[in-house]
Amino acid sequence: MGEKVLCGVDIGGTKLSVGLVTPGGRLIDSTTTRDHVRKTPEEIVAQIESFVRKLLDRNRLSEADIGGVGVGTAGHLRYRDGVLITMSNLKGFRDFPIRDRLQSCFTAPVYVDNDANAQAFGEFKYGAGTGFSDMVFITVSTQIGAGIILDSRLFRGMTGTAGEIGHTIVEPGSDLICPCGNAGCLIAVASGVALPASARKKVESGMSSPLFAGKNFDFSAVTGELIKQGLETGDELCVSIVDDFARYIGIGVYNVFQIFNPRAIVLGGGLLSWGDVFFDGITTRFKSLAREMVFDDVAIVRAKIGPHSGVIGAASLALEEA
Amino acid sequence: MGEKVLCGVDIGGTKLSVGLVTPGGRLIDSTTTRDHVRKTPEEIVAQIESFVRKLLDRNRLSEADIGGVGVGTAGHLRYRDGVLITMSNLKGFRDFPIRDRLQSCFTAPVYVDNDANAQAFGEFKYGAGTGFSDMVFITVSTQIGAGIILDSRLFRGMTGTAGEIGHTIVEPGSDLICPCGNAGCLIAVASGVALPASARKKVESGMSSPLFAGKNFDFSAVTGELIKQGLETGDELCVSIVDDFARYIGIGVYNVFQIFNPRAIVLGGGLLSWGDVFFDGITTRFKSLAREMVFDDVAIVRAKIGPHSGVIGAASLALEEA
Repeated sequence: MGEKVLCGVDIGGTKLSVGLVTPGGRLIDSTTTRDHVRKTPEEIVAQIESFVRKLLDRNRLSEADIGGVGVGTAGHLRYRDGVLITMSNLKGFRDFPIRDRLQSCFTAPVYVDNDANAQAFGEFKYGAGTGFSDMVFITVSTQIGAGIILDSRLFRGMTGTAGEIGHTIVEPGSDLICPCGNAGCLIAVASGVALPASARKKVESGMSSPLFAGKNFDFSAVTGELIKQGLETGDELCVSIVDDFARYIGIGVYNVFQIFNPRAIVLGGGLLSWGDVFFDGITTRFKSLAREMVFDDVAIVRAKIGPHSGVIGAASLALEEA
Repeated sequence: MGEKVLCGVDIGGTKLSVGLVTPGGRLIDSTTTRDHVRKTPEEIVAQIESFVRKLLDRNRLSEADIGGVGVGTAGHLRYRDGVLITMSNLKGFRDFPIRDRLQSCFTAPVYVDNDANAQAFGEFKYGAGTGFSDMVFITVSTQIGAGIILDSRLFRGMTGTAGEIGHTIVEPGSDLICPCGNAGCLIAVASGVALPASARKKVESGMSSPLFAGKNFDFSAVTGELIKQGLETGDELCVSIVDDFARYIGIGVYNVFQIFNPRAIVLGGGLLSWGDVFFDGITTRFKSLAREMVFDDVAIVRAKIGPHSGVIGAASLALEEA
């Protein structure tokens, strides 16, 4: 056995994934479950430990081969203490000392951060952010988050909750509401959770679509996947939603540009699977706002790591220098 | 002569001020002119040098008593090179190597940064930001700018233009336009340059005010001072403008809070002279948006340094550790 492997743990509201990753960022093996949503925090800790041991066994590795365990989790984390403050999707996690509990399971050092920071650091180490010591990663998914890399390190702020650009207000008069309760933040107007209300508004304003037909159509069924299907058939309503979202994410990218003057802004998250029409809409909006205010090139690029970015990003946390 | 003094230079679009400042942040003496606006960059450099020598003479100091010359300037600066990129208010400054030219006049080291960064660092060293290693200073004046202090140092970004929160878009559908050309950025909706169009809109929507009476009222005369007079008499239109501005600056403060999770946000600039009704309006808006998302206290406070903040802030730049 040469160089040690990294272990990555991605704790989400619907999926829990654990993987072994090479120090170069290649996924060796992984396992995923959805049954963690019914478990207590202590049971989830035991489940993670058991997954790690199973992965080690079936790859003929021992615990001594692990260089570090990185964990990316949903929710808000008090970073220095490794304690969860909020976790909207899983029960019992409020004030749970997740880092200490996981550390008690392993001899290798355990690093815990929120999932957006984990993915950001993964893109910085292995993906689209390679070579950019100052970059902002924005994930556009069910919700919207960001990870901020300054001088090759994650910037976390006072509590550890910096980078919540999803909650920045960009349309204060909007009737679209974020789960946090505020109107017109980026999450409210341009994320997965914004899709049902956005689609309903389009229909109510007279736009029709065969995908959303019927008086009893359940708008909660409007997902990124459904919009993607609509895009493929040129569905007018879906195209219009993607256009709206691109304009708002373009504003978010522009605002990040004005605030951080970063070398790169990396866009990831599930909704980027909408493809060129979405990404190009974002960059077009950015350019129309930034114009001659771009004094040095800023790279606006898609995340590269792909479907295992949660686990690979989490593993990369073990590589952040103290 | 004991400890060396600092020299501060504040280059603005209407005023040029030069001052001597103690290392503790007390203004010893200063001089201000408005005739620099008709001069070339080289003439302004000579004028600054002459002002410094005059101040030294009349305070019985010599050049050897100066520990450093700090310069805060309007415009965009390529920080590493000390070269101005843009300077909308003074002619001939585009691509002017201001730091090298001033350095050739003095033996003490010369530090040049934009005026918002200078004021931010002044508040950090001597004012409302003392003790907060991570803070954001926002100036609400003719325009809106910010200086970002992270880990006790100014964060400048790739070019040196980080902190341009005045250009962040918060009302994309607005018909209020920033001098940069964009609609609905903070400058467009809540700064000194926004006052004429904001007042005109109020009048056109039927609101009346004795201050803005007459069909030929020249709205370009609507300044922060005029609004302040109106506030003192309870003028409905002025109160309404201050309320609008407070709501937008409150959004700006909230967005900064979500992005940086800072220990403190310090508000300065001329429009803060509107007093409690404005400041309290800002903090009320912030609190109504942030609610239970404040996990650790964030101090939202007024700048303390006052009328000489430009010169004192500029001088403080000499104290930033390399």
